[in-house]
Amino acid sequence: MRVGELSRRSGVSVASIKYYLREGLLPPGERSSPNQASYDEGHVHRLRMVRALIDVGGLSVAATRAVLAAVDDPQVPLHEALGRASATTPPPWGASGDADDEARAGAQRALADLVRERGWHVSPKNPAWDTAVEVLATYTRLGDEDLARQLELYAEVMEDVARREVAVVVDRGDRARTVEGAVVGTVLGDTLLAALRRLAQEHCSAQLLEGAGLERAEDRARG
Amino acid sequence: MRVGELSRRSGVSVASIKYYLREGLLPPGERSSPNQASYDEGHVHRLRMVRALIDVGGLSVAATRAVLAAVDDPQVPLHEALGRASATTPPPWGASGDADDEARAGAQRALADLVRERGWHVSPKNPAWDTAVEVLATYTRLGDEDLARQLELYAEVMEDVARREVAVVVDRGDRARTVEGAVVGTVLGDTLLAALRRLAQEHCSAQLLEGAGLERAEDRARG
Repeated sequence: MRVGELSRRSGVSVASIKYYLREGLLPPGERSSPNQASYDEGHVHRLRMVRALIDVGGLSVAATRAVLAAVDDPQVPLHEALGRASATTPPPWGASGDADDEARAGAQRALADLVRERGWHVSPKNPAWDTAVEVLATYTRLGDEDLARQLELYAEVMEDVARREVAVVVDRGDRARTVEGAVVGTVLGDTLLAALRRLAQEHCSAQLLEGAGLERAEDRARG
Repeated sequence: MRVGELSRRSGVSVASIKYYLREGLLPPGERSSPNQASYDEGHVHRLRMVRALIDVGGLSVAATRAVLAAVDDPQVPLHEALGRASATTPPPWGASGDADDEARAGAQRALADLVRERGWHVSPKNPAWDTAVEVLATYTRLGDEDLARQLELYAEVMEDVARREVAVVVDRGDRARTVEGAVVGTVLGDTLLAALRRLAQEHCSAQLLEGAGLERAEDRARG
């Protein structure tokens, strides 16, 4: 198909398609004449994936290029492909305080203890490690120790989630579809989990506050 | 304390402090002379919170202002404060396809079924509703039905998480500290949950792939 039909099929404007081609997010079409290229179903699918990662997953163009390169390159191990999907929000740590203050050292210990107790085998190079430490250190700096104590529950439920997710994508059988599922599921799954957490919070807080007879004024205000 | 000491105590530059004052993220200090203001421990804490929400939680300055306004205003009900914390990533839906296509209608039904089955009482105005629908619709458009089927598991674990979190912050007793905990815990908790999910994925995928004797080449590459 020509670029016009690719645009119609994918819902992505021709200008955006050209931008994604230049940025290497979309492989070039087959050149049918000096000024014309021909695209196929693979391009339609890839465009949908690009938009999913950017629009729904909130990835930058650069992060999207990195994860798609991992999807395309069979030499990239599955773990690294997943790592690229996770390293999407470059943590601006250091701006928020001393790199090795007490809060961070405590957070490091708490996370290391957790990982050991759960028997997780994870590389210290996984960028998620630093991210988790930074959140825990921030709780401590803010005096929110009660929030930091949710670490174990969080780890427990995320292990349940991860075990199922990994099984689901490995079940796809071939490497390309497994990596694609891992990337899409990891990035969009964050968004879905966060949304369901908000809905559950609304439900649970209404339940708890009403049950305890607290904040009646709020209940009235909600009508 | 003067602005210089506030900067030293909080680790935030004087220029940034002045920017946050202009943007209304930080309440003004007490004016001690026409050119001087005096700040207190409340300002140190507020600055740490601003940096936590922006640097660690990834909120924009506008979203941070909105959630802090909810923290400061006792008239804002707890639910709305939480809602503001969640409405931080404006979903650019519609760009990615027809507003009422089949995929979205199916996603709406799936989420409505889930909410009914779980007995969740949630307002249709909760922005998380649209976010969840969009992710599910995107899975369908990409042909990732196996990922979409994780919805129930996700909802189950997020309900466990939300129940505990709400109890923890309500336990703080006073309204201001409860709302502050809800805001910080919701925003930073997303980051922490996503990080733990990545670590658990690394562990579970190594376990599963090794257990199944699959991808031996990858194991070798990992050394």
